Amino acid sequence: MTGAELLVNTAAELEVDICFANPGTTEMPIVEALDKQKRIRSILGLFEGVCTGAADGYGRMAGKPAMVLLHLGPGLANGLANLHNARRAHSPLFNVIGQHATWHLPADPLLAMDVEALAGTVSEWKRTNKTVETLSRDTVDAVAAALQGKVSTLIVPHDHQIAPVNHISFEKTADSLEYLDQDSVESAAKLLHKSGHKTAVILGGRASRRRGLMIMARVSAATGCSLFVETFPSRVERGAGLPLLERIPYFPNQAVSALSGYESIIFAGTREPVAFFGYPGQPSYFLNDQQAKVHIKASPNRMEDALEALADSLAATKKTPNAAGKLAQLKRPELPAGKLTPQKASAVLAALQPEGAIVVEEAITSAGDYFHLSMSAPPHTYLALTGGAIGQGIPCALGASLACPDRPVINLQADGSAMYTVQALWTQAREAANVKTLICSNRSYAILRLELARAGKELPGEHTSSLTDLSNPELNWVELSRGLGVPAARVDTAEDLAQELGRALAEPGPYLIEMVL
Amino acid sequence: MTGAELLVNTAAELEVDICFANPGTTEMPIVEALDKQKRIRSILGLFEGVCTGAADGYGRMAGKPAMVLLHLGPGLANGLANLHNARRAHSPLFNVIGQHATWHLPADPLLAMDVEALAGTVSEWKRTNKTVETLSRDTVDAVAAALQGKVSTLIVPHDHQIAPVNHISFEKTADSLEYLDQDSVESAAKLLHKSGHKTAVILGGRASRRRGLMIMARVSAATGCSLFVETFPSRVERGAGLPLLERIPYFPNQAVSALSGYESIIFAGTREPVAFFGYPGQPSYFLNDQQAKVHIKASPNRMEDALEALADSLAATKKTPNAAGKLAQLKRPELPAGKLTPQKASAVLAALQPEGAIVVEEAITSAGDYFHLSMSAPPHTYLALTGGAIGQGIPCALGASLACPDRPVINLQADGSAMYTVQALWTQAREAANVKTLICSNRSYAILRLELARAGKELPGEHTSSLTDLSNPELNWVELSRGLGVPAARVDTAEDLAQELGRALAEPGPYLIEMVL
Repeated sequence: MTGAELLVNTAAELEVDICFANPGTTEMPIVEALDKQKRIRSILGLFEGVCTGAADGYGRMAGKPAMVLLHLGPGLANGLANLHNARRAHSPLFNVIGQHATWHLPADPLLAMDVEALAGTVSEWKRTNKTVETLSRDTVDAVAAALQGKVSTLIVPHDHQIAPVNHISFEKTADSLEYLDQDSVESAAKLLHKSGHKTAVILGGRASRRRGLMIMARVSAATGCSLFVETFPSRVERGAGLPLLERIPYFPNQAVSALSGYESIIFAGTREPVAFFGYPGQPSYFLNDQQAKVHIKASPNRMEDALEALADSLAATKKTPNAAGKLAQLKRPELPAGKLTPQKASAVLAALQPEGAIVVEEAITSAGDYFHLSMSAPPHTYLALTGGAIGQGIPCALGASLACPDRPVINLQADGSAMYTVQALWTQAREAANVKTLICSNRSYAILRLELARAGKELPGEHTSSLTDLSNPELNWVELSRGLGVPAARVDTAEDLAQELGRALAEPGPYLIEMVL
Repeated sequence: MTGAELLVNTAAELEVDICFANPGTTEMPIVEALDKQKRIRSILGLFEGVCTGAADGYGRMAGKPAMVLLHLGPGLANGLANLHNARRAHSPLFNVIGQHATWHLPADPLLAMDVEALAGTVSEWKRTNKTVETLSRDTVDAVAAALQGKVSTLIVPHDHQIAPVNHISFEKTADSLEYLDQDSVESAAKLLHKSGHKTAVILGGRASRRRGLMIMARVSAATGCSLFVETFPSRVERGAGLPLLERIPYFPNQAVSALSGYESIIFAGTREPVAFFGYPGQPSYFLNDQQAKVHIKASPNRMEDALEALADSLAATKKTPNAAGKLAQLKRPELPAGKLTPQKASAVLAALQPEGAIVVEEAITSAGDYFHLSMSAPPHTYLALTGGAIGQGIPCALGASLACPDRPVINLQADGSAMYTVQALWTQAREAANVKTLICSNRSYAILRLELARAGKELPGEHTSSLTDLSNPELNWVELSRGLGVPAARVDTAEDLAQELGRALAEPGPYLIEMVL
């Protein structure tokens, strides 16, 4: 067998079952190796940011890494922004980058870049394969790292891919990386036991999945602690029957105000929240030195066990939460009418989204009301833009759909951000992915105008207006979408949105609705 | 004034007159500074690869750097692939990246990446501004480096952008960076003087512009040397009245064969050519140790002077070249008929392209015949994909058009590559850029299939077929283009292409023709 076959077979043994790819000549041996097996499917993206964003979405929903196959430095460079988002999401993700043959690289061929430097900016694990003999080991280590919620990047020279090698058996390493720090659980329990002490628990990562949330609802019912979710959760389960969570506000003054009443803060699956930008005169950190802080420490796969241990130590029963009003009761907003606004668009979605929907939200300014309006919708999964690098929504929705083909995916999507990785619509069409994309067509980078207004800026000048304006010419999302193979419609009233969305949800496959706001 | 105003004013003093931008909150002070002046125009790209590719095209044609304004690490990451191409083109290019405020960066906000590491992969000059007091100096140094044919990247923290500062006068440094190595000119002259010695001169960079080429035609007429141009020239002037140049072939065996008959090789504005990929059993380098090699050494702005000095030392007259048959005589191919093929598409273009056209070619496999067919077309400029990172053509054509608004730009463009930065069509529409885009719609990554066939691979397997296929679904380039604001048509015969292209060339503004091949 070849090195490429060894790599692919090893990954398949480790239950990698999908590969998002945009390969080039230096990755073709790996593509040929994919041809010789049946366990890993391959999905083509027409731009690398599509592949990496889809792998992020897949990893968040499947709980295991997708493989991503990218061409040399430029291919990795094109995928970096969504790898950055994946890193911030702690998504499991296994990158494979082809590299020039070791004997050719010193000639500095035109496509050569410093691939390790690029990989280092987004990968918590990276390695360049040194010899075909270690390729199986390298693959095992890379997948094990990915399973710990990391972006791992393995760089494989072309000559190692084509070199003959005997199959080398491997030992999984993943288990040795698991941990659960009982001391941190006990510290958290002590804070929760203090009487007359207001405690907030901030949840993220694995702690905001169903099992962790239901445990924490019991803890909240037993101790009175408040439950928050990070501002941009990689994945949170919510809606009827699930705990009501507050979200850490985006702007520093609001976040400080939301958290200042708590004497103690416990973090589970997330880190201390910080300001998105440094605003003059406002703090980087939302918490103060007087507040006690405990981080529950566990590897991603043990986080829910850690929360269970916390609940056990508090003797929190399994029956309390609902009675204590900690869980959302089914209640949808009324269907609004009239000219569409961002608020009405969110209300229509919250009113119609089916049970089990996966909502991928990259609507930036247009979905300010959605999180609240959908709080008591039927149970659903919510995926946010975790790293702030726009262009995540359409690919992430694709990846989530491939991970969960039986669930409808709804992508509530800003127009400016959508343009970054619009190519992902083509792969949605190709894979008949059940994704409904709702474009918030406000024809501006409204977030920049909002930030300027908050900074008290006067009327914007010519450059400021122009560089935040998407209306000249107007993007025609219906034509764009159809050009990429996804049927589409445009709406500008709440009634039409309700009708189009209802119809789209009743059909399988991708569909795009341009919501003129 | 603020630091941002100082930066913008300094750049304007150094004759920077355009800024391709996709800013975010951490760059808004620079946008506001643009509002306060009249010398630098700003151009919005809907994806950073559009901005960097356009700046590359602008730099190649204007001979001075465009400024590029990008948002933090993710914005730079999205622009890297075309910065890589610009680096390989030795284009002058001045990047400005906003950075989080120095006091906020230690909090590791979500958008934080290692911006310096990213910049280092493409920038021959990079610096993070340390204090507002040095911002003018940093800007001067960055622009001076850019003028030496480098990608320069200046990273400016937000707090330095908004800090008050007095205007600081500056001293230009560019002149001190110029050089011309007379010894290298004399070494080249010695080789050309050897009688019975076959010499090839390989031209690139500034040596393949009109002045350098006309000098080298005299040298060729006087000495009998052959003139080659690098495989992927950043810019070459060609057509009737200009020297006939051979192009270094792409594949190693052909390149070795083309160059093996020469005892001596002289390089001007380019480096020793190497294989694009490392093919097993084929060499990285095309030249051998027996061949004498001399590099003419001069800074980009002095290269033509160096060639003049070479011609003078050979006493090459100014009259010989034409008589010696070294210059192309006007001759266009016949207009072909019938179903469109790649060869016929190239022939139609070569038959119709107007004098003074700028041809941006990123057609990969589809334009194999174009370079030869257009050899004796009216004089025109040819810009190639210099770094192999696909997605360069549409933005580069935009930038070239903004640099030369009075010249028609024709972009001969592969479909797979076009999808990488298709967003640039929108900016072409917004700026009414006179760019005609000819999409070679072969609905595949044909280069990969060609490389596999050359490697003697049998019939491709399922993954190989699927990952090189763009036909499921078919991209509808007419809808895509219209969705982005550029009118478009589809053709599948040579006659229809001739008619559409003729009509498009007669009108100003952008137009796209999907050529079904």
